[in-house]
Amino acid sequence: MHAYRSHTCADLNKENVGDTVRLSGWVHRVRDHGGLLFIDLRDHYGITQVMADPDSPVFSDIEKVRNEWCIRIDGEVKARDASLVNDKLPTGEIEVFIRDIEVLGAAAELPLMVFGDQEYPEETRLKYRYLDLRREKMQKNMKLRSDVVSSMRKRMWDKGFREFQTPIITSSSPEGARDFLIPSRLHPGKFYALPQAPQQFKQLIMVSGYDKYFQIAPCFRDEDPRADRSPTDFYQLDLEMSFVEQQDVFDTIQPVITGIFEEFGKGRKVDQMWEQISYRDAALWYGSDKPDLRNPIKMQVVSEHFRGSGFAIFAKLLEQDGTEVRAIPAPKGPNGQPVGRKFCDRMNAFAQKEGLPGMGYIFWREVKNLEWHPQVLGTILGWIEMGACENLTAEAILGGVNAKDGELFQSIVDLINNGDGLDLKRAKELASATYGPEFVCEAAGPLAKNIGPERTEAIRQQLGLTVGDAAFFLGGKPKTFETVAGKARAVIGDELGLTDLNRFAFVWIVDFPIYERDAETGKIDFEHNPFSMPQGGMAALDGKPEDVLGFQYDLACNGYELVSGAIRNHRPEIMFKAFEIAGYGKDEVEKRFGGMVNAFQYGAPPHGGCAAGVDRIVMLLADADNLRDVIMFPMNQRAEDLMMSAPSEPQNEQMRELRLRVIPADD
Amino acid sequence: MHAYRSHTCADLNKENVGDTVRLSGWVHRVRDHGGLLFIDLRDHYGITQVMADPDSPVFSDIEKVRNEWCIRIDGEVKARDASLVNDKLPTGEIEVFIRDIEVLGAAAELPLMVFGDQEYPEETRLKYRYLDLRREKMQKNMKLRSDVVSSMRKRMWDKGFREFQTPIITSSSPEGARDFLIPSRLHPGKFYALPQAPQQFKQLIMVSGYDKYFQIAPCFRDEDPRADRSPTDFYQLDLEMSFVEQQDVFDTIQPVITGIFEEFGKGRKVDQMWEQISYRDAALWYGSDKPDLRNPIKMQVVSEHFRGSGFAIFAKLLEQDGTEVRAIPAPKGPNGQPVGRKFCDRMNAFAQKEGLPGMGYIFWREVKNLEWHPQVLGTILGWIEMGACENLTAEAILGGVNAKDGELFQSIVDLINNGDGLDLKRAKELASATYGPEFVCEAAGPLAKNIGPERTEAIRQQLGLTVGDAAFFLGGKPKTFETVAGKARAVIGDELGLTDLNRFAFVWIVDFPIYERDAETGKIDFEHNPFSMPQGGMAALDGKPEDVLGFQYDLACNGYELVSGAIRNHRPEIMFKAFEIAGYGKDEVEKRFGGMVNAFQYGAPPHGGCAAGVDRIVMLLADADNLRDVIMFPMNQRAEDLMMSAPSEPQNEQMRELRLRVIPADD
Repeated sequence: MHAYRSHTCADLNKENVGDTVRLSGWVHRVRDHGGLLFIDLRDHYGITQVMADPDSPVFSDIEKVRNEWCIRIDGEVKARDASLVNDKLPTGEIEVFIRDIEVLGAAAELPLMVFGDQEYPEETRLKYRYLDLRREKMQKNMKLRSDVVSSMRKRMWDKGFREFQTPIITSSSPEGARDFLIPSRLHPGKFYALPQAPQQFKQLIMVSGYDKYFQIAPCFRDEDPRADRSPTDFYQLDLEMSFVEQQDVFDTIQPVITGIFEEFGKGRKVDQMWEQISYRDAALWYGSDKPDLRNPIKMQVVSEHFRGSGFAIFAKLLEQDGTEVRAIPAPKGPNGQPVGRKFCDRMNAFAQKEGLPGMGYIFWREVKNLEWHPQVLGTILGWIEMGACENLTAEAILGGVNAKDGELFQSIVDLINNGDGLDLKRAKELASATYGPEFVCEAAGPLAKNIGPERTEAIRQQLGLTVGDAAFFLGGKPKTFETVAGKARAVIGDELGLTDLNRFAFVWIVDFPIYERDAETGKIDFEHNPFSMPQGGMAALDGKPEDVLGFQYDLACNGYELVSGAIRNHRPEIMFKAFEIAGYGKDEVEKRFGGMVNAFQYGAPPHGGCAAGVDRIVMLLADADNLRDVIMFPMNQRAEDLMMSAPSEPQNEQMRELRLRVIPADD
Repeated sequence: MHAYRSHTCADLNKENVGDTVRLSGWVHRVRDHGGLLFIDLRDHYGITQVMADPDSPVFSDIEKVRNEWCIRIDGEVKARDASLVNDKLPTGEIEVFIRDIEVLGAAAELPLMVFGDQEYPEETRLKYRYLDLRREKMQKNMKLRSDVVSSMRKRMWDKGFREFQTPIITSSSPEGARDFLIPSRLHPGKFYALPQAPQQFKQLIMVSGYDKYFQIAPCFRDEDPRADRSPTDFYQLDLEMSFVEQQDVFDTIQPVITGIFEEFGKGRKVDQMWEQISYRDAALWYGSDKPDLRNPIKMQVVSEHFRGSGFAIFAKLLEQDGTEVRAIPAPKGPNGQPVGRKFCDRMNAFAQKEGLPGMGYIFWREVKNLEWHPQVLGTILGWIEMGACENLTAEAILGGVNAKDGELFQSIVDLINNGDGLDLKRAKELASATYGPEFVCEAAGPLAKNIGPERTEAIRQQLGLTVGDAAFFLGGKPKTFETVAGKARAVIGDELGLTDLNRFAFVWIVDFPIYERDAETGKIDFEHNPFSMPQGGMAALDGKPEDVLGFQYDLACNGYELVSGAIRNHRPEIMFKAFEIAGYGKDEVEKRFGGMVNAFQYGAPPHGGCAAGVDRIVMLLADADNLRDVIMFPMNQRAEDLMMSAPSEPQNEQMRELRLRVIPADD
């Protein structure tokens, strides 16, 4: 028999009854049932109940074991009583009667329990990561991560991509974040850098003629502490293709992503048609360049309704250049609950907390239609119900209703005496056709009062809202409120139950501007990646820099940026020009990006690609809200590994070899 | 039509004749055949011949293109004349007549030609790596590497292993080489390290209960320049398993390795049965712990034959403790060419060049058997051939031969006159039975003379050698000559054609000693990895340290170490004891390997694994003799990336943030 196991802890079932088996694993928990000892023995694959009674030759050894001891047992498989079968366990039909036991690894007192759901401070979890990782949730998350990455690889291979490894010890890369540096011992005073992304290398691979590249690539950025970001490194599914346009990249990555989300999404809906929205529309509609389209709310410009209106704040604002008023529609949720003043006031307070002066709102409530002359009509309907006017026609009644109140009664009496037929439903339909619905929509809230019913109604119609819905309004230069608008949209979608939590909603954001002008200095700089091809090529660069759009794109999923990419600028002359506009001379470009720019002189193919965030994808699939829950051995937020004691003091010898000296803090 | 291509340059054949197509790729070469221009257009997938004549509307544009320009062409597929069909190309039946051309990327004058086999200095190849990588050999090597790594992954998944990524920014690891350090910005004065291997992490993954781990793992070592080693990093197929013994690890990795070599070995033989040889036997038999078993030579101890012999050097040597004489047998190669004095002298010179005083030798040559009384027998055989003694029996002749020379002639004449039957073959057989073979083996060379025929014959018999073979002899303490013996064995195998170049020969080297005693200081230190489980566990550590063997193993293939691994010491008490023997106190162990040692306190499972060198495996499969030929973007031997200019001067701002100062060289 094998030294440690004949079966895993997930293998045994009724068919093994009577077999002598050997199992190894961890003591998940021990129960003492009146002298009978039951142990849930756990390995990576499952749990098997093993047990002993005082007649067992090794009972006293078994009594000594504690939670998380690693043990081997030999024993005999027995069927459980029907009443004791555990349907939740694959091994729930059997138990193993222990004949022999060996302690493979005892455990000291546990700083963190593996069994159960107790919460522990993150520092404890990271310091004793090997215990934390034994817990069911972490086992699932780590398996998920591994399986997602495998599936990505298989899907990329199936599409004819090869994985090529790019250097990890290299030179500073132009991604705009901070590099991690590595002092060179052979060249003291010089430093390598860890790559922020394999950007330059993957482009060089294209120039080298490899056509299709991908890599599950580690990326390194020396980030300042931030709650939801690894302070040191992250992984990308990085890909690049030659001889492609933007749509080719989309057609390549979309089935990979949908495939992954379908495979691991546990049945949640996965969008199959991905909208493409321009960067500018995304900002307008969703207040974000990574909108969450599970939330159906789409903002609109409603400036015209406020221009010259009685709402002085907006009316005045709109007199300034570049200002707008935008509306966030807030339709009632699927529970039909009207959106009332209380919710609107809460959202107003939210905007104030986010630094805006507030958010105006209108909400639409239902009131009876006063046009229906309700008293008179009521009287008549009463008669009808009493059968007093069987022969009265609806048209005839309406004729009566139309008459002035004073004349009404006699007119109706006459009609009844004429003895025409009549029914209630028909009467109401006709009343609606003439006066509108029985109940009508009234715009409420202070803002509505200020601008009056015509403007509020025009707004209501533009936004397609109705009774029970509301809308919020923000005015000024869009940049000043867009982000808060986006956040408010998210809160509204969540709180009203509009956001479909059972869905992965994808959207391409396209047409990113290449440049932005600094509002204060007026200086032009790159808005995003300086290596994207401008739409329109060289000619486009002769126009207004702010108007130049790039073949650059992001994919948003449920409000997160999952993928980012571009068709690259592979023409040296266009690249130098693009940099010149942003104030970088040829020399500087050659110095900073020499490897790539030189390569472009030797027959560069058109190429483009993208990179998908692996950690983020796994987080979404695992429903985790912390990156550290999908990374095996993460740093804490202060970029420390508490288990391995990193970073740590170097040895003097190391510093001597590197010819480095640490400057004291007070220097 | 797609912006760049309707087909790749490997797609078109006779069935496309008449189609209008679009191709993109590089100008591999241009030929001008009397006004007709032919371009071999190359992409990642293949080559297609495209052409134009002066009637083409774009002829003047085509005339301008040069080698390695990246172009797009539109054109019409035409069948080639039967006489012009190129069978070597998948597209050799057709050519494309160019109707339109677009230059996608022009090329400056080339520092390195892609077309052809010209050799370039390595510095040129690395600086213009993107051109070097376009060459056919490099395209093949890089595809091979990528495919090998993919195949490794698939094979590991099939065996139930999951890939888990371990940290790249971490703390110093105990592999014994030099770390690359990374200064921490958030914790100035402290440093991270790049992992020399994921050793501690993979063991922690086992303690975390994941059972089977693998990773295609980057490993980082700050190595001094050495011709055949990457000065910065390399990749391993790293794996670890829980609840296993040594043989389980072997049974896991062997089919992965044989599978890879069968899949990518281009038909070369792949050993299916892997011998297990102890570290000590390997040193004795092959003078190496990574023996090349394609070479059948196996060394032997032949001390007894030299003890007290006339070869004073060895005889004296053997009077000292711990000395031995070992023989390297050198049988003649498959061409049957005898190993002569000239070869033996050359090998002696080789040993001297390697720092030994020389290598004694014996070679065995063929001489006529003097016992056969050759003159007399010759005469008789002459008669027989002339038919002079048809009736003479072989026995009768032998009777004559046995007689004293003086009496021989008459005796034979009498026999002939008796008229018995006789044949030549039978006569020789009988002569051999009586006197030994017609030709006999003579030991030659100075050493043979010194020790005399009996000892040389005994040596010959021990080594199983015969005429045409030789043997070399080395004496002293084995450590002083083992390495040279191993090298000599390799040279002998190569030069005599004994080594089967058409084979991948694998052998496990097992039973590595845990400790070695420094010959000068007498101090005990770890021979290899301090984390291996001693054979015999705690009890074994009470004996003589040099005698303790570990469950530690290497796999050698064709003279290279391909895999290295161990069953780990997972018991803290045995680990502390093992370190204590080598002079490391508990405090120091906890300080240096705290992460792992702490984890072992909490229910560690028995576990073990190994790591296979990816770069080395690809090198063997690619028949490359330089690591840099199987790495996409390698450093040069001075650990510089000439293309990306790494390492380079840091920016002042970076140094300030890291609170570091470089000490001038003359400080």
